[in-house]
Amino acid sequence: MTTDAKILSALRAHPDGISGAQLAEDLGISRAAIWARMDDLRQLGYDIEAAPHLGYQLVSAPDALHADDLMARLHARWGERPRAPRPNSPERLAGTLAPPKIIGRTIHVFEQTTSTNDVVEKLARDGVKEGAVVFAEAQTKGRGRLGRKWASPTRKGLWFSVLLRPKMTPQETSQLTVASATALRRAIKSVTRLTADIKWPNDLLLDGKKVVGILTEMSAEVDRVRYLILGIGVDVNQEAGDFPPELRAVATSLKLAVGEKISRAELATAILQELDADYARIAAGEFAVVADEWEAACITIGKNVTVQVGDRKFAGHAEALDDDGALLIRTEHGHLERVTGGDVTLDK
Amino acid sequence: MTTDAKILSALRAHPDGISGAQLAEDLGISRAAIWARMDDLRQLGYDIEAAPHLGYQLVSAPDALHADDLMARLHARWGERPRAPRPNSPERLAGTLAPPKIIGRTIHVFEQTTSTNDVVEKLARDGVKEGAVVFAEAQTKGRGRLGRKWASPTRKGLWFSVLLRPKMTPQETSQLTVASATALRRAIKSVTRLTADIKWPNDLLLDGKKVVGILTEMSAEVDRVRYLILGIGVDVNQEAGDFPPELRAVATSLKLAVGEKISRAELATAILQELDADYARIAAGEFAVVADEWEAACITIGKNVTVQVGDRKFAGHAEALDDDGALLIRTEHGHLERVTGGDVTLDK
Repeated sequence: MTTDAKILSALRAHPDGISGAQLAEDLGISRAAIWARMDDLRQLGYDIEAAPHLGYQLVSAPDALHADDLMARLHARWGERPRAPRPNSPERLAGTLAPPKIIGRTIHVFEQTTSTNDVVEKLARDGVKEGAVVFAEAQTKGRGRLGRKWASPTRKGLWFSVLLRPKMTPQETSQLTVASATALRRAIKSVTRLTADIKWPNDLLLDGKKVVGILTEMSAEVDRVRYLILGIGVDVNQEAGDFPPELRAVATSLKLAVGEKISRAELATAILQELDADYARIAAGEFAVVADEWEAACITIGKNVTVQVGDRKFAGHAEALDDDGALLIRTEHGHLERVTGGDVTLDK
Repeated sequence: MTTDAKILSALRAHPDGISGAQLAEDLGISRAAIWARMDDLRQLGYDIEAAPHLGYQLVSAPDALHADDLMARLHARWGERPRAPRPNSPERLAGTLAPPKIIGRTIHVFEQTTSTNDVVEKLARDGVKEGAVVFAEAQTKGRGRLGRKWASPTRKGLWFSVLLRPKMTPQETSQLTVASATALRRAIKSVTRLTADIKWPNDLLLDGKKVVGILTEMSAEVDRVRYLILGIGVDVNQEAGDFPPELRAVATSLKLAVGEKISRAELATAILQELDADYARIAAGEFAVVADEWEAACITIGKNVTVQVGDRKFAGHAEALDDDGALLIRTEHGHLERVTGGDVTLDK
């Protein structure tokens, strides 16, 4: 962690204030250096009060994403972030959430990129270790599945990509698609109390409108993945008018659903922690647990659906997920079809 | 085609000679231009005789690979290349072989590259159409499967890569691995009369020694391939001493097996034609035909094998290929395992 990240981490760990002397000792730098860093952090938009007896106190953080702040939040002890008790909390499923083992080891924030997947791909080709995360406050060429565009207006959502190097065959990567959806769903619930539905393979819906999109891209040999990029877009603080007219009936934001502005930094932190927890579950061979969670939240299973894969279109009944995360569909003719891609729509 | 390729094509179509006047008319250029091109081709190492009544005649081509010559050979009518009649000829299987529909639409030859897969990947990212082929006379960083090195000494073999954009899921790409092996095997047979064995997934062996290696790399989403690169290495004209000592027991060249030097250009042409034929068969939904041909030539099927995939190792009996080209292995415990990668060795 950088010195700024360590300072922000200490401020968050001491909401009632921490003295400059204590900070200087903990970080092994001078009190003058602490003072200078505080000044810089205030320039970045942090409201940091200094009181004679209480020491430094973090009052508020800026709306802009800040890599040091995200890192500080990730390394703050999970229990110190206020949250509702949940009977099926991820702590119960995945053990107590700790600072990230893999996802979020390094974090970069760009003001603007073409697509965060493009940036992460360059990192991957340069041999960067898995777990690197790249956020952009805006994307000029955000991408969705099947070559579609993804609108990424400045500071309205979370537009980011995660570099992974899973020991998997290309076929097994749909496990990560499934896990992304469960992780995003838990993170949204912990920050907003909203319960999203999952639409196969990994769209998250609120009241039937899409709020999260995930694009998984990989470089692979036939039998092994070299690297995989999870590209994630979350519509957080858009107003209805921020969506183009043609999307208003099918897309929404967390703010529209919950009625108030959401802290993007808090949500980003929760997402990275939950993604890390699910990635660990899969690495431990526990995809079945993730799949059960996914199936319980999925509105596609048990429904009659229409599937379009390339030029081919067929109807059937969505029965279950298979071991690799593919959707098993019983067709009108009684065959069981294994669907790994394309568009699946729910029949009315 | 370039003018040089058209001239070489015409010379090959008229082994008894073609007049300068005829060439000039066919190509729509002046006789002086024909004369100048002939001079340039001679500089490149082509032995072209000019006799008063017979016209121009191609006596021999240089050992170096030449993109124009490969293109001319591909567009020469297949029947004009002398070859042995074969009861199971690919013409019978795939229809009469015509100039390439896809593979070989454009051809590049480099004196030296790091890896031809790297060059083709750049073409792919620049949006080049599928079917482009890149040869290198030498590779400084030739790659094999599972991160291994591939030795590529200058002008001793064929080191090349093919860009494909198949409408497939990543899972289905093992079909192309299987098809590459059958295509290479037919091409080697047509040029050398040698019948190679196939070792799963796509090694070609002569007398138990490896003579061809294929590395398939792709860029994909979870459910669709963006582009796929077939990287192919054929050991053609090496002497035993050209192989490092540790490889002499397990690797061989076509020259060592057949006892004479092989025309790399003729072999390259045959390979591109056969690859194109198999790619067309797969696009037409006829992978089952390719798979049957593969199984008949495969020494792995019906044998007891040991499989190593990552850290996992198990033994079993190789029973068949499945619809996607994966190897089905009946384990000692009676389970049927689907193997898509790793190392498969034949038990003694």
